[in-house]
Amino acid sequence: MSPDDFPPGSVWLVGAGPGDPELLTRKAARLLECAEVVFYDALVGAGVLNLAAPGAVLIGVGKRSGRHSRDQATIDRLLVEAALAGKRVVRLKGGDPSVFGRSNEEVAALAAHGVTVRICPGVTAASAAAASAGISLTLRDEVRALTFVTAHARAGESLDLDWPALASRRSGLAIYMGRAAAPEITRNLMAAGLSGATPVLVVVNASLATERVIRGKLSALGFLVRAVSNADPTLLLIGAMADPLRAAPGDWLERSQLPREVASRVPRSQVT
Amino acid sequence: MSPDDFPPGSVWLVGAGPGDPELLTRKAARLLECAEVVFYDALVGAGVLNLAAPGAVLIGVGKRSGRHSRDQATIDRLLVEAALAGKRVVRLKGGDPSVFGRSNEEVAALAAHGVTVRICPGVTAASAAAASAGISLTLRDEVRALTFVTAHARAGESLDLDWPALASRRSGLAIYMGRAAAPEITRNLMAAGLSGATPVLVVVNASLATERVIRGKLSALGFLVRAVSNADPTLLLIGAMADPLRAAPGDWLERSQLPREVASRVPRSQVT
Repeated sequence: MSPDDFPPGSVWLVGAGPGDPELLTRKAARLLECAEVVFYDALVGAGVLNLAAPGAVLIGVGKRSGRHSRDQATIDRLLVEAALAGKRVVRLKGGDPSVFGRSNEEVAALAAHGVTVRICPGVTAASAAAASAGISLTLRDEVRALTFVTAHARAGESLDLDWPALASRRSGLAIYMGRAAAPEITRNLMAAGLSGATPVLVVVNASLATERVIRGKLSALGFLVRAVSNADPTLLLIGAMADPLRAAPGDWLERSQLPREVASRVPRSQVT
Repeated sequence: MSPDDFPPGSVWLVGAGPGDPELLTRKAARLLECAEVVFYDALVGAGVLNLAAPGAVLIGVGKRSGRHSRDQATIDRLLVEAALAGKRVVRLKGGDPSVFGRSNEEVAALAAHGVTVRICPGVTAASAAAASAGISLTLRDEVRALTFVTAHARAGESLDLDWPALASRRSGLAIYMGRAAAPEITRNLMAAGLSGATPVLVVVNASLATERVIRGKLSALGFLVRAVSNADPTLLLIGAMADPLRAAPGDWLERSQLPREVASRVPRSQVT
């Protein structure tokens, strides 16, 4: 129970994936089985925690909205204390620790105390949402760049994002925690030049039994999210890739069968 | 061996993750064990393929550079034929199928023939590279947006990317297949206003035993990749998050201990 890469007194930051316990990596499952203490985020569910050893101590460290900084300091301190007490510690984070997970702050806190800390990557929510919706996040000719942003702002502050860059042509957006800010997102992206007809997918509880995929267009985004609870993790996908029908032209289609707008998007190498 | 979600004659597009067989998801491993036919990309290694059942037929469909489109049509046809023959088919793709994996083209080809196709997400290379380098891809105040792009162009063509958007302030870049185009990337990003002092990490063979992490700055990127073989998958991380030292200020640090440039970046909530 003490493999080479997980000695007592060390910490692993582990990506728990989007929610479905089957979407943990094999490595994450192994580390979780070996851990003596597990600190987990609010979005990590029982199905994942059940993979921990029966004797492990499980400690929820979900953050309260608007008080992130103080809570992060507390989490840092708890991690350091558990490691210095000689425990094998897993810090379970929803999705991938490196995407909006503040893993650098925990890594730095642990390193400053001489604690060995490593990171086990996970499946990020955007990948799980795309899989659930049956789409690709990128399209060979039409969506060449994919940008992840979080729409979570400090209480009372507006989103401080580079909207013209986010509205770039031939790119797609995956917006984490986008429910509350949906009207602000629509307003800013359209002001920056993105068409209100841009396809949108709202993916709620990706990979869980309660998953929902809502399809629409950017101008209606505020309406689309209205039935979504703020408590449910919600990912917004915005761009041409968010429309499974538009994204579909493939090699087996005759150009003559395609409507004009689709035919013009058939990859050049097939047109010649 | 025939679970509800994998009937004969259906296809799963499965993310194989970055290379380390331990970084497959538990679901991917299960589907691979159930598959009768496995089509795999050139970057999927023996360690992953060993997880397939002993009787499974393994078929490599790695693409040759510069001839992608014809090969993609062939792959589409092979997938359809195997499914219509009543096999349980896994299409194994390096990383996550939704990130530069052309999964939409295969989904569309299969759907057009009435074949049931589903997607199992995977750990994308950027997440694995960040984990290996011990960094976060996002920083709470400094890197709020993260853009994935691929630097793979058709033979003889230059990269057709929105460079000003990619050089956006407070954002980070993860560039897939970036080795060959490194000089062009540096030139365009600096012309678009990104400082030559911007931190860069070059991560080669992320998660494999042969993994290498090379650290430097944007102006030296062309030099940094010179010792990297074109055959090795190479990810470029560009932005403030690519410097583990600059990304480190945490709650445990006294402001007085910090050099001026770092102190100015301590999150506001801790400064007040």
